Amino acid sequence: MNKDIRNLSDRIEAVFPKMVQLRREFHQAPELSFHEEKTPARVAEILQALGLKVRTKVGGRGVVAVLEGGKPGRTVALRADMDALPIQDEKVCDYRSKVPGVMHACGHDGHTAALLGVAEILAGMREDIAGRFVLLFQHAEELVPGGAQEMIADNALDGVDAIYGVHLWTPFPYGVVGLRAGTLMAAADSFRIEVIGKGGHGGLPHKTTDAIVIASHLIVNLQSIISRQVDPLQSGVISVGHINGGQAFNVIAERCTIEGTVRSFDQEVRQFIKQQMERVIEQTCQMYGAQFELKYGWGYPPVVNDSSETTRMAAMARRIVGDDNVWEIPPLMTGEDFSYYLQKVPGCFAMVGAGNEEKGFIYPHHHPHFDFDERVMKTAAELLIRSGLGYLSADSPEVTVGNLYR
Amino acid sequence: MNKDIRNLSDRIEAVFPKMVQLRREFHQAPELSFHEEKTPARVAEILQALGLKVRTKVGGRGVVAVLEGGKPGRTVALRADMDALPIQDEKVCDYRSKVPGVMHACGHDGHTAALLGVAEILAGMREDIAGRFVLLFQHAEELVPGGAQEMIADNALDGVDAIYGVHLWTPFPYGVVGLRAGTLMAAADSFRIEVIGKGGHGGLPHKTTDAIVIASHLIVNLQSIISRQVDPLQSGVISVGHINGGQAFNVIAERCTIEGTVRSFDQEVRQFIKQQMERVIEQTCQMYGAQFELKYGWGYPPVVNDSSETTRMAAMARRIVGDDNVWEIPPLMTGEDFSYYLQKVPGCFAMVGAGNEEKGFIYPHHHPHFDFDERVMKTAAELLIRSGLGYLSADSPEVTVGNLYR
Amino acid sequence: MNKDIRNLSDRIEAVFPKMVQLRREFHQAPELSFHEEKTPARVAEILQALGLKVRTKVGGRGVVAVLEGGKPGRTVALRADMDALPIQDEKVCDYRSKVPGVMHACGHDGHTAALLGVAEILAGMREDIAGRFVLLFQHAEELVPGGAQEMIADNALDGVDAIYGVHLWTPFPYGVVGLRAGTLMAAADSFRIEVIGKGGHGGLPHKTTDAIVIASHLIVNLQSIISRQVDPLQSGVISVGHINGGQAFNVIAERCTIEGTVRSFDQEVRQFIKQQMERVIEQTCQMYGAQFELKYGWGYPPVVNDSSETTRMAAMARRIVGDDNVWEIPPLMTGEDFSYYLQKVPGCFAMVGAGNEEKGFIYPHHHPHFDFDERVMKTAAELLIRSGLGYLSADSPEVTVGNLYR
Amino acid sequence: MNKDIRNLSDRIEAVFPKMVQLRREFHQAPELSFHEEKTPARVAEILQALGLKVRTKVGGRGVVAVLEGGKPGRTVALRADMDALPIQDEKVCDYRSKVPGVMHACGHDGHTAALLGVAEILAGMREDIAGRFVLLFQHAEELVPGGAQEMIADNALDGVDAIYGVHLWTPFPYGVVGLRAGTLMAAADSFRIEVIGKGGHGGLPHKTTDAIVIASHLIVNLQSIISRQVDPLQSGVISVGHINGGQAFNVIAERCTIEGTVRSFDQEVRQFIKQQMERVIEQTCQMYGAQFELKYGWGYPPVVNDSSETTRMAAMARRIVGDDNVWEIPPLMTGEDFSYYLQKVPGCFAMVGAGNEEKGFIYPHHHPHFDFDERVMKTAAELLIRSGLGYLSADSPEVTVGNLYR
Repeated sequence: MNKDIRNLSDRIEAVFPKMVQLRREFHQAPELSFHEEKTPARVAEILQALGLKVRTKVGGRGVVAVLEGGKPGRTVALRADMDALPIQDEKVCDYRSKVPGVMHACGHDGHTAALLGVAEILAGMREDIAGRFVLLFQHAEELVPGGAQEMIADNALDGVDAIYGVHLWTPFPYGVVGLRAGTLMAAADSFRIEVIGKGGHGGLPHKTTDAIVIASHLIVNLQSIISRQVDPLQSGVISVGHINGGQAFNVIAERCTIEGTVRSFDQEVRQFIKQQMERVIEQTCQMYGAQFELKYGWGYPPVVNDSSETTRMAAMARRIVGDDNVWEIPPLMTGEDFSYYLQKVPGCFAMVGAGNEEKGFIYPHHHPHFDFDERVMKTAAELLIRSGLGYLSADSPEVTVGNLYR
Repeated sequence: MNKDIRNLSDRIEAVFPKMVQLRREFHQAPELSFHEEKTPARVAEILQALGLKVRTKVGGRGVVAVLEGGKPGRTVALRADMDALPIQDEKVCDYRSKVPGVMHACGHDGHTAALLGVAEILAGMREDIAGRFVLLFQHAEELVPGGAQEMIADNALDGVDAIYGVHLWTPFPYGVVGLRAGTLMAAADSFRIEVIGKGGHGGLPHKTTDAIVIASHLIVNLQSIISRQVDPLQSGVISVGHINGGQAFNVIAERCTIEGTVRSFDQEVRQFIKQQMERVIEQTCQMYGAQFELKYGWGYPPVVNDSSETTRMAAMARRIVGDDNVWEIPPLMTGEDFSYYLQKVPGCFAMVGAGNEEKGFIYPHHHPHFDFDERVMKTAAELLIRSGLGYLSADSPEVTVGNLYR
Repeated sequence: MNKDIRNLSDRIEAVFPKMVQLRREFHQAPELSFHEEKTPARVAEILQALGLKVRTKVGGRGVVAVLEGGKPGRTVALRADMDALPIQDEKVCDYRSKVPGVMHACGHDGHTAALLGVAEILAGMREDIAGRFVLLFQHAEELVPGGAQEMIADNALDGVDAIYGVHLWTPFPYGVVGLRAGTLMAAADSFRIEVIGKGGHGGLPHKTTDAIVIASHLIVNLQSIISRQVDPLQSGVISVGHINGGQAFNVIAERCTIEGTVRSFDQEVRQFIKQQMERVIEQTCQMYGAQFELKYGWGYPPVVNDSSETTRMAAMARRIVGDDNVWEIPPLMTGEDFSYYLQKVPGCFAMVGAGNEEKGFIYPHHHPHFDFDERVMKTAAELLIRSGLGYLSADSPEVTVGNLYR
Repeated sequence: MNKDIRNLSDRIEAVFPKMVQLRREFHQAPELSFHEEKTPARVAEILQALGLKVRTKVGGRGVVAVLEGGKPGRTVALRADMDALPIQDEKVCDYRSKVPGVMHACGHDGHTAALLGVAEILAGMREDIAGRFVLLFQHAEELVPGGAQEMIADNALDGVDAIYGVHLWTPFPYGVVGLRAGTLMAAADSFRIEVIGKGGHGGLPHKTTDAIVIASHLIVNLQSIISRQVDPLQSGVISVGHINGGQAFNVIAERCTIEGTVRSFDQEVRQFIKQQMERVIEQTCQMYGAQFELKYGWGYPPVVNDSSETTRMAAMARRIVGDDNVWEIPPLMTGEDFSYYLQKVPGCFAMVGAGNEEKGFIYPHHHPHFDFDERVMKTAAELLIRSGLGYLSADSPEVTVGNLYR
């Protein structure tokens, strides 16, 4: 394992004020997914000033910076995402969003600022680095199909051997790092079903095809997919979040629309659920003589951390926050397009605690009052640097250095 | 049975132009249920001019006129309704509604005009009448709780021995009279159920109480009331016409609202269905831990024709339209507050054909293009007069004169 | 209408002891459906002794006797059935069944004895009869496909203009006749569904196709056929009387069998229910990947009484039991193969009250303690004779003589 | 960690023939759960001959032997079970069961023989042992409530610091050891529900309370517990393995019985499923007016392996079968009352591969042709000895010696 990096804590403390300043700058000027303009421009400007080789408009709106170390070696990527959400910022502070209806309500401003801090620190120790850092500033994480795929298609991962990423996470307190080997985050798909029957007089059901009764049967029938057809050792969720059918209480509805989400952690289970849903929808509608339209929206695949890289990142996390503060966490039901990078190269994604009850950082992500303990950017930066350097300095990419979670 | 009334056809033909004129006058100035002002005023004015004893604001907005015959006898009531519907008149003709969003789309204008014609004819033969006619011009038939109850409470039926009424009916061609002994029209009730669960993240169903899944189970469960618990020889319908729950595809819904109608032809079945619905709603919600609110709106009771009076009215109808054009019809799934009169005194309600394909009178009642063959007012008037006079001139109120439908 | 038949009551009283004796003779020697041997032989012997033209083995085991009247005229048929049931006779009396496990538990012994009495009486007034009586002693009413079809195929109805039949009926007290125009008795079909999935370990549902869960969904789904797809003004019943699936609590079942009955009063509704059941079964099984086998057993069609003949038979019944004791009854959910005769010629089937609480005749048909007030055979005989003679003596087969039920 | 034990392989090879002989002896004389007599007597005889301190009839029929080492130390328990199953032995071999209908179809004969071999080996190295071995020969593992609880109640675990056990397992090939930290085996509970409605005529559902339709609704409703109410990251199974209701296709059933099993891996989930089932059963029956009886049979709790002890046992297994043959396995849906020991003291239970396709050992446990590769007894014995000695010789009970699964 690599020896400790000289003065890393000091270096991070030195850069921290700049990270805070940048984070607040981004926070006040949030940009929606696939509409990032000023943010990538500012990011590129800073990276260029640090002397990195910068490519912009990668996959559309992403920025890729390459930092060549002083010695030959492997290539490791670190990733931040840059986009904001269509939410009105309702918190009261001097750095709140200046864009009506748009807000950094998920903390990507912090990710970007932290990775810019990482860039500055690494730039300052370039000569000692054996290998190469690729810094990915990704656009459009919040909106399917996401920016990750676009950047990969635009060669952002070319030559990369491993990748690390973090998400600052207010459900965990500041000072904690949560991660797990294997599946960390879900595949989150969406669907919209329109049951098309034949409307008519509320007292004459036999002359109609009642879309609402059929939709109800359908929803009941979907339950048996989860309860009987998915392996009980696997996880699967079909949730109908919205239903709407008919207009008047006394007129049988011609149409009933159902919208929902499917969550899974395994690509086979994911495919299986979709296929069984199609079957249940088709047969339920046919049974009662209705037509249907199904739109199934594939979300991101599950985030699957590499075992060895998770062991490495956990080891690094223990050095930063101490053994007790590295948690093996259960999988999360949310999605992330970091999954696409992990489909290409081994790596690990970790959740870095950013909540702080005393300071009032208690709101969940995507909440209008969302905010976080900015010190998390130090943890994030250190974790990314240590993981990246650890990877580059290791004798072999395989890690076998201990019991993961004590 | 009474001998034929001298020149009745001629008298009706003579009054017909006035009926048409009045009908079109009302048609252009429709008034919503419980908002009738000009119509009852105009009705009262005409009746007073005919020398009848007129009482206005009966039960709020109804008009009751009494025509004393020249000889002593029983008392028979004839009823018309006066209200219009909140529908935009979309037909093209010179008598279309002048009130935006309000329309005589059910033909009550024709009922009122025909009964005014009846009043004029009866006034002209007053001396020959043995008994008394009570003419009921009722407000608010279209809107529960309806005007009939109010008029009855205000003594409109005091002293009345029997009652007749008609509905002009475009689903039957002009020239036909449809009726049946026993139940003719349904009890049409309404309900609104709000299932109140606990919303939450689409991927974490176990932390929620999913109102949409519960509402679906509920709708499926309601089917077994009809299929298993209602006597198969009886009729019962539970139709959910409207469902709405949740807002976002990926958020589990806290609330789901269901609105529908219950139809039945028998008071016991009606009570039973409501009682079983309450049970199914309560237990289904409890089963999955949800709360609920139920609003059950009683509609009108079923219209139940008296057997003898139906026999009499059918006999009269055969004289007017011929044997082949008097139809024994199956019960109708719609409701009418004529039922309240029939709960008090024997009588009969008949459907008088008003459709005419050649003339384009093909639209169902409550349709924005609804219109009818105005000649139906002659049939209606003659049927009411003959039934009323027949009742007054019969030796006994019991009719045993033949096979009802040949 | 025919003048009253001279001394009919006396003639019936005179024959009654013989009817009782024959009934008890048959009662002690019951024969199962399609196994009638001694009964038809005995019937033929008696009829031949009366001088009637007798044909045996009609349609297999039936007996047809023709009685030519003294004058020309139309032909009317009267029918009795002769078969018993596979039930152990548990009542205590000196005429109980001597055949173990076989019993006249439905009263067909009474039908046969009464019609033999009718034969004797008619034979005694042959000269006065204008026309012809055909007496049908039918085998196998209790077992689908029944003897009626076989006898018809063997020309039993050739030349017949009208037909009457009765069933003695313990749910009604002695002295009552119940009947109705139109549909009197149901079509009673049967079905057997085997859901064939894939069995397996109780803890590994995803490796199985759970026949029990699928059968449960199926039964729930069948409810919506009745509640939503059958005209609410029509009657339809789907009852699952038997379900059996799996062997062990902890092994998922490969097979689940469902058996049930379908009742309807209308041939279209009957066909429709079967067709929708096939759809629901097929789609429910397909939905979850199961196979199925369906055996649908057509029972007898509904018994549909002719309107005119019902009016005639009701009029005759009023003469026998008085106006108050002729009841218009709702349709019965049981079946009868008398329906096949009524599909060929007009006629009427009536239920003749045979219960008597004081005498202990309180058991329903098919009960091991079933017995009846033997005086019902007099009512039955008189009703058949009067209806037949009434038909033959009427100027026209059309009856328009009064209000059916007062 | 302990140095390697001198000549352990040789010692085991030397004892192996005796293990085989004993196993076959037990195999031919199987005894049912709670009916073990000869087996424990024979076990006690052998253990006494080895000079161990033996207590019999522990908790009823168990045998506990204590082997005091030559040096002071902690106390470790090893466990075998002794009971057979009510299955007819259908395999052909010279050691097949001589008891009709009873068979060692789960391999407990092998467990007992292997642990007797362990006793002999440990007895031969007594002086080197620092601490104490407690050998548990348990009765009645196959039948709830099981022998483990009884033996614990009878002080079998007194003074014990850790425990190890194995199950020979034909689904894994000989030469493999499968295990996992945390939950290894399920809680397997059972239930029996009787829905009690009101029977009646198949055509008159409204006069009945249809137990079959209610049972079907119930089974459908149970699905939503698994699909919506259990945490998707947890496992839960409700399987209905047997359903039986009604007798005749045309009679509505009064009663319908459902039997099934519930599987879970977590005590909270287990309690929750039972509680929700009670709710669903009660409300579904109440909804349609039925009564019910529920018998819920608690099975064994889940087998939860201690993390440290699993690490230790896995390390030992790797020495025996090599790194590649130690598998981290997913939890198994079957149950074991070894769980009760693990509720008292830390320990680990492992599955030792006993299948061999070439030799025809391909049948699953509880199969009438079940048999296993007897060499598994050597693996089992060595794994138990190494784990026990490893525990006793370790400096601390905590193990932190490496990555569990490579």
